[in-house]
Amino acid sequence: MQSLILQLAGLGYGGDYNPEQWSPEVWREDVALMREAGVNLVTVGVFSWAFLEPAPGRYEFGWLDEVMDLLADHGIFVDLATGTASPPPWFSHAHPESLPVDADGRRLWYGSRQAFCPSSPVYRQAAAALVEQLATRYADHPALALWHVHNEYGCHNPRCYCDVSAAAFRTWLRRRYGSLDDLNRAWGTAFWSQRYTAWEQILPPRATPTFPNPTQLLDFQRFCSDELLECYRLERDILRRITPDVPVTTNLMAASTWELDYWAWGRELDVVSNDHYLWAADPHNHIGLSLAADLTRSLAGGRPWLLMEHSTSAVNWQPRNVAKKPGQARRNSLTHIARGADGALFFQWRASAAGAEKFHSGMVPHAGTDSKIWREVVRLGSDLRSLAEVAGSTVEADVAILLDYSSIWAQEQDSHPSRDMTAVEEIRAWHRTLWRAGITADFAHPGGDLSRYRLVLAPALYLLSAEHAAALASYVHEGGSLVVGPFSGIADENDHIWLGGYPGALRDLLGVRVEEFFPLLEGETIPLSNGATGRIWSELGRATDAEVLATFASGPVAGSPALTRKQHGSGTAWYVATRFDDDDLGKLLSQVTEAAGVRPTVEAPAGVEAVRRRHPDGRTYLFLINHTDDDVTISVEGKDLLTGRTIASPLRLPAGDVAVLQQ
Amino acid sequence: MQSLILQLAGLGYGGDYNPEQWSPEVWREDVALMREAGVNLVTVGVFSWAFLEPAPGRYEFGWLDEVMDLLADHGIFVDLATGTASPPPWFSHAHPESLPVDADGRRLWYGSRQAFCPSSPVYRQAAAALVEQLATRYADHPALALWHVHNEYGCHNPRCYCDVSAAAFRTWLRRRYGSLDDLNRAWGTAFWSQRYTAWEQILPPRATPTFPNPTQLLDFQRFCSDELLECYRLERDILRRITPDVPVTTNLMAASTWELDYWAWGRELDVVSNDHYLWAADPHNHIGLSLAADLTRSLAGGRPWLLMEHSTSAVNWQPRNVAKKPGQARRNSLTHIARGADGALFFQWRASAAGAEKFHSGMVPHAGTDSKIWREVVRLGSDLRSLAEVAGSTVEADVAILLDYSSIWAQEQDSHPSRDMTAVEEIRAWHRTLWRAGITADFAHPGGDLSRYRLVLAPALYLLSAEHAAALASYVHEGGSLVVGPFSGIADENDHIWLGGYPGALRDLLGVRVEEFFPLLEGETIPLSNGATGRIWSELGRATDAEVLATFASGPVAGSPALTRKQHGSGTAWYVATRFDDDDLGKLLSQVTEAAGVRPTVEAPAGVEAVRRRHPDGRTYLFLINHTDDDVTISVEGKDLLTGRTIASPLRLPAGDVAVLQQ
Amino acid sequence: MQSLILQLAGLGYGGDYNPEQWSPEVWREDVALMREAGVNLVTVGVFSWAFLEPAPGRYEFGWLDEVMDLLADHGIFVDLATGTASPPPWFSHAHPESLPVDADGRRLWYGSRQAFCPSSPVYRQAAAALVEQLATRYADHPALALWHVHNEYGCHNPRCYCDVSAAAFRTWLRRRYGSLDDLNRAWGTAFWSQRYTAWEQILPPRATPTFPNPTQLLDFQRFCSDELLECYRLERDILRRITPDVPVTTNLMAASTWELDYWAWGRELDVVSNDHYLWAADPHNHIGLSLAADLTRSLAGGRPWLLMEHSTSAVNWQPRNVAKKPGQARRNSLTHIARGADGALFFQWRASAAGAEKFHSGMVPHAGTDSKIWREVVRLGSDLRSLAEVAGSTVEADVAILLDYSSIWAQEQDSHPSRDMTAVEEIRAWHRTLWRAGITADFAHPGGDLSRYRLVLAPALYLLSAEHAAALASYVHEGGSLVVGPFSGIADENDHIWLGGYPGALRDLLGVRVEEFFPLLEGETIPLSNGATGRIWSELGRATDAEVLATFASGPVAGSPALTRKQHGSGTAWYVATRFDDDDLGKLLSQVTEAAGVRPTVEAPAGVEAVRRRHPDGRTYLFLINHTDDDVTISVEGKDLLTGRTIASPLRLPAGDVAVLQQ
Repeated sequence: MQSLILQLAGLGYGGDYNPEQWSPEVWREDVALMREAGVNLVTVGVFSWAFLEPAPGRYEFGWLDEVMDLLADHGIFVDLATGTASPPPWFSHAHPESLPVDADGRRLWYGSRQAFCPSSPVYRQAAAALVEQLATRYADHPALALWHVHNEYGCHNPRCYCDVSAAAFRTWLRRRYGSLDDLNRAWGTAFWSQRYTAWEQILPPRATPTFPNPTQLLDFQRFCSDELLECYRLERDILRRITPDVPVTTNLMAASTWELDYWAWGRELDVVSNDHYLWAADPHNHIGLSLAADLTRSLAGGRPWLLMEHSTSAVNWQPRNVAKKPGQARRNSLTHIARGADGALFFQWRASAAGAEKFHSGMVPHAGTDSKIWREVVRLGSDLRSLAEVAGSTVEADVAILLDYSSIWAQEQDSHPSRDMTAVEEIRAWHRTLWRAGITADFAHPGGDLSRYRLVLAPALYLLSAEHAAALASYVHEGGSLVVGPFSGIADENDHIWLGGYPGALRDLLGVRVEEFFPLLEGETIPLSNGATGRIWSELGRATDAEVLATFASGPVAGSPALTRKQHGSGTAWYVATRFDDDDLGKLLSQVTEAAGVRPTVEAPAGVEAVRRRHPDGRTYLFLINHTDDDVTISVEGKDLLTGRTIASPLRLPAGDVAVLQQ
Repeated sequence: MQSLILQLAGLGYGGDYNPEQWSPEVWREDVALMREAGVNLVTVGVFSWAFLEPAPGRYEFGWLDEVMDLLADHGIFVDLATGTASPPPWFSHAHPESLPVDADGRRLWYGSRQAFCPSSPVYRQAAAALVEQLATRYADHPALALWHVHNEYGCHNPRCYCDVSAAAFRTWLRRRYGSLDDLNRAWGTAFWSQRYTAWEQILPPRATPTFPNPTQLLDFQRFCSDELLECYRLERDILRRITPDVPVTTNLMAASTWELDYWAWGRELDVVSNDHYLWAADPHNHIGLSLAADLTRSLAGGRPWLLMEHSTSAVNWQPRNVAKKPGQARRNSLTHIARGADGALFFQWRASAAGAEKFHSGMVPHAGTDSKIWREVVRLGSDLRSLAEVAGSTVEADVAILLDYSSIWAQEQDSHPSRDMTAVEEIRAWHRTLWRAGITADFAHPGGDLSRYRLVLAPALYLLSAEHAAALASYVHEGGSLVVGPFSGIADENDHIWLGGYPGALRDLLGVRVEEFFPLLEGETIPLSNGATGRIWSELGRATDAEVLATFASGPVAGSPALTRKQHGSGTAWYVATRFDDDDLGKLLSQVTEAAGVRPTVEAPAGVEAVRRRHPDGRTYLFLINHTDDDVTISVEGKDLLTGRTIASPLRLPAGDVAVLQQ
Repeated sequence: MQSLILQLAGLGYGGDYNPEQWSPEVWREDVALMREAGVNLVTVGVFSWAFLEPAPGRYEFGWLDEVMDLLADHGIFVDLATGTASPPPWFSHAHPESLPVDADGRRLWYGSRQAFCPSSPVYRQAAAALVEQLATRYADHPALALWHVHNEYGCHNPRCYCDVSAAAFRTWLRRRYGSLDDLNRAWGTAFWSQRYTAWEQILPPRATPTFPNPTQLLDFQRFCSDELLECYRLERDILRRITPDVPVTTNLMAASTWELDYWAWGRELDVVSNDHYLWAADPHNHIGLSLAADLTRSLAGGRPWLLMEHSTSAVNWQPRNVAKKPGQARRNSLTHIARGADGALFFQWRASAAGAEKFHSGMVPHAGTDSKIWREVVRLGSDLRSLAEVAGSTVEADVAILLDYSSIWAQEQDSHPSRDMTAVEEIRAWHRTLWRAGITADFAHPGGDLSRYRLVLAPALYLLSAEHAAALASYVHEGGSLVVGPFSGIADENDHIWLGGYPGALRDLLGVRVEEFFPLLEGETIPLSNGATGRIWSELGRATDAEVLATFASGPVAGSPALTRKQHGSGTAWYVATRFDDDDLGKLLSQVTEAAGVRPTVEAPAGVEAVRRRHPDGRTYLFLINHTDDDVTISVEGKDLLTGRTIASPLRLPAGDVAVLQQ
């Protein structure tokens, strides 16, 4: 058993701790309650800049010293935040040019949080100075276990269009393209008289009379992700220099934001951590949670990761902030653990009495400890202690879903055949369908190592470079199974169409040539010859060299292939030329997984989630999570770490309950 | 009989008169028609600044002299407007810094009306100079009966975010808080690193990356109301100095806008006057009218007030400006009179031929006097003369509905448990339910004198200071009945949560402790044990010391109290933990009013409105307004002032008709 | 047979050709394919400014010389564009003050297209210089057949609110009004204290606190149309000076945009040309296409015109860009020809591989020539060659629909009786109803020559000057039939109400006096005495001197006239006081056309479009277009130019097919 955070000797448990909102008397109560709940890790200082540096260059660490010592004294480790996400009013007031500006030229002011331009030199200098001070002061503090750089990069300020950002964008473009000629070619500026003749002419895609240049837009999103990552690296490098042995993280928002290229981010983090909140109005939000966990694990390269934030109950920022039902927070936490997290932390320890997030639930609610929430917090702490040996184990998957942020950004641009042809929702649908079939999936980048997967799915991969197309072909040629959804492989990395028939990048691999898209009107559907129903999309084309499993059965594309399969030795390339509802998608993926020899983790009733973690030494842990309102039985055996009981099959799992079988 | 406007010797009747839109020949026709219609009071000069002062410091009063004289000659009194609501183009062009700026930094230009920043010194100076001139010139004019300061303060420019406003906001804050430490505490700036270290750092809540500071937002709304009130006081003080015997008013928009703290405004007006327009698409708009009248009366401290504007038929600013049915304008006018108005004026005398409001109906319509509208105008004039003796009498109510503007502003902010948990609509629903039960209600501020009410309702009172909470407790302890709706008493005057269990400010008074809110999803409902159906909201809690009259009957809060009652001697404190549709709310309030001994004005069929006015000498006037399409009979007696007939019970009241019984 | 474009000796066929997006090798393939398809006219250089003038004053014509020569060598004529619609980045970067600014003060940047202020002197100078160069260089080029000024004026930048535009607006107003007094009168500035006392006070209708001045808004729209027309004239005059024999056009967007007063534009064009795209989600889009063609023909004064752009299949800018069904593009093209076009061109020749319009279909699609699209392009070229003799013939119509852009702008402003009382949609409905009845209609301006029409329809003509009202009266008095829809003739050219009863400008002509509008609520309807159902609108009024054919049958306007007719000698003036759905409108127009002696072109089954073109020498061409999914038979004879077969009645016309009978 080895924890992600070495000092913890097990799973991490705790939350964001913001002592500056409370009096020192409350701090003493806090640490006592933390011990009662089994908390071993808290994040401190996320929004403390104004308290740590109340005036330029004047640092006040006294209060934080006291908090750190108090936590150390009570055996609680600290994930110490650099506090750079929210510059203090004195800073923004002195440097209004550091405030972000939107595409309409509207300056966004301080008074909430994250009010800074990521490219601002003065912001970066001030942040670096604070980090240097913090790292120096707490380098040897016994409570320090992890560095928490910034907070949720890109939350609220993913893109800035100010003149400073414009200059940084030009620098980034010079690095990417070298010459203006190459940039003009990549951006297709022959269209609409957009050719640039000097670097200084180039701007972010600000408000413009009509559709902006698509590649300019795409490159700007790439730049924005890189620019925030540069902010992270700046802080991380300081921390590494001063405390080379303390791991560094920043909390991502995987599956909540799609604005940053998290594949690049994952590589830069010592510990990948993630924040996840349920979308209350979504009846499938527990599946969305699993997707977030699977994606975070994939961003971490399969290594254990840390759930940095989730909520004990309601949040405050949705239209209707539904509270969690009894047991729901526990299932949520344990699902993250099941899918590879080595710890589960909440935002935040004590619910605020004031401010914009005062109605966000905490571990200690407004009502205090005589409450459902507190009792569940204590119980979860106990559960996690029982699961200590799970720490360090990993999750294995036979299926990968391809996900490329650049492709998502390009696919979800305007001026495309159909606004319904979104990427993220389709990726969610395919993941959801696998979830229902009991199959654990990783996410993968098309340029990543796919060889360990029996099956690779590309639900929506509009952008595909020649290099990545070749990688997919190799994967199939070496025996893999690939399923490609419609409107994939259409354009190259610069968003130029692969000519000669769609999908240009995959035409030969799939044995299909499409000549014209026939998107459907809102709500329109089209019958398929195999009884399924196409939605959103149809196409006019033919199978040049593939087996046609279904055709469109009516209208102007009648007879065109809707589902094809081409064998390449033992490898298989499937193509589906339309979109399905969950039922039809389930049938398709059932056919595909069966053909690829992919099996569910265990046979379990509908609504019961089953995931397995494994240690290199062979010990495995089967997590069984009953999301239904009924008690179920499952044919499994092993020792349930949560109850300590040994199960002789079948296991009876009550409604809403969880079992973790050591096998 | 004593009129609100002493010279009128009865009820006021007339409208806005804008002679500058017409030629002097039309003026002569106007006064003749006014006499025909029984008009005795017109508002002159509301938008005359550009005509009165065509260039800086150059005043042209000749035309107005002529109009004033003409009116005086025909026995028509004037409510003389100061004309400061719409600065002329020459002013705004010379002083662009006086134009308002919105939260996005967008300057709003002249070309419509109300294009000024309320804090602008140059605007205030120019307005004051004009008022000084007007008051001096017409101080002794025989037509002058009332001063009409400005027009609909806050209409279109309730909030300005410019630098001038920012400075004024800081001045206001310094006065409120004294020290930055106190401000930081009140605003909860420990959250999100928002601590201010110098006054000049503080800004209005301009566009910011995410949720602004809630207390900053709340204080800004308080400031904006105060700042406009300051504009009013500036003009009023000049008028009082020059014409100490002429009463001063400004026309409020009670129940149309909720942006200004009209409790504070009411105290500053010699005569409270109000503008009210029906919302055409609302089938209950006649009840909304009654609410507006009840609220205006309450703002006037129960004294008679003046209906400054309503419409003879359609307005121009709604999506579909439905005309009034025959008789509807008469019922509207007489309802205002019934609920305490001592006069009914229209916007405007003669419908404009040009400009943005040309499709707003007038007393003289585009079609001229051969029209339904004109005939109704003449009839209403006659009716009001018949009711002359009603002037000066007042309305009595046994029930008060609590209404606190600060609480509304705080409750309707973002980032709360549910966006459906609005305040204004709920207050309307409770008032509507009383209306249907035939019960007349006042509105009251939680800090006001409640002792004269048998029953006090708090449908939505999110914000409650310790002082006001104590006042409510005193009211109950002294025998009053109080009904509290959900999400009331949650936060203090700075929008800090009352900790320890909701509703913190009222927990002991109600004998209820709630630990967690469970808002419902859109459209979701929850059954109650008493057969009612909860909407929008449910909660997890328990009765600590109250009788549970109904519980939530399903879901995660099953068993938690939904309706409770706690006795305090002869006083009673009810709590309702969810929201109802009109039917269930009717049953609840029927139970409550019966227990409190509150009775309807008279027993009348559904849809017949009954309100009583009373002179100190005991004479009373029972207004009966038949809103139905059927003739009805009502067991009442008295002399009908409108027909002159003496009624021996029962009264037969035709569909759509009105009777006013002197009793 | 004489073609619109003299050199063509027949109908024009081709598209926008943008060689700068492709390599010279592709150019050679292009001209070969053009010949294969029968292309004889291509538009070159629409977005070539950045390539023609890569730096200020440095011109590079070499590539265009090569393209022009290549086209000439292959017998393809060129519609040479001036390229001024999209200034290059170097220009906008050097002259940011030339960028457009919206009503909110937001500057719109370059990076898409049309990013210029139409009033910008520096833009106009740069555009003029380029035109001078182009005209000089290609004046004698054998390929040059037509000048294509700019592109789709007003697309994306119809209105600019910057300070430069403000000054130009003032200049325009001085010309229109001469004196400030006249402007103040026309704008009705007595209302809301808006009187101007110096020209420099006047601004465009920028963002303002509430409803702007309606006449200011209306005049600003007139100004904006004139200002763009001035841009056109500037270029045209240069071209005429240098190449007096080459006709000049600019491509309008008739029936797509309503922002420009195209009546004024039509008079300035040597050849009227138009762009038209189907609205995919509209099931009646083929009727909308006919409307666009009828309107373009009318703007051209009945002369042949040119379809400058349409699409072979899908476009890229709608929410769902549905592809065209097989045969649909052909029907579309031939419908334009049927309705007076002497050529049909597409945007664009070769579908782009990059840029914002890459998913816009072309004549050569992404898939290449092995495609449905290419085969249809070749077939259409052949069809058009078969129809060569049609060139120069014209379309005759007995019915005119009145359309006045100023009236549309005024009618669709805010602050009117009902937002549902739109003009354009109603004009479309009346045209659609005639289409279904097989009746070809022109559009006409109320000030135009109406004497040649048996029937004139005024579905929505809110604004009507005394002069135009008199013209309509003359038309009726001379025996014409006029049908007037509700809310017509309400205001004069300055948007001042015609007083004394609606519709003031037409009261005597119609014999109707309306005293009050009673718009209906959303979705509300009102029964009429003749069994029809009124929508959106009802009125209180009476027939002063007209036959009442139907009354409103319920509610407050029961008994008021809904449909009237007044005879003036042999002339007739109908009035309809409400709006109908298509069925009731069909019955009304059937009654009206029958009374006026208007007959369909031929008797044809529903869904079959029939239009006749005629040469002065008496040869006629009956176009029959079967829009249905069924084969039909029609009693007609003549020689079908498309098949070469002579038809002895009846003609059997297959589903989706077209016949053109020489008769």
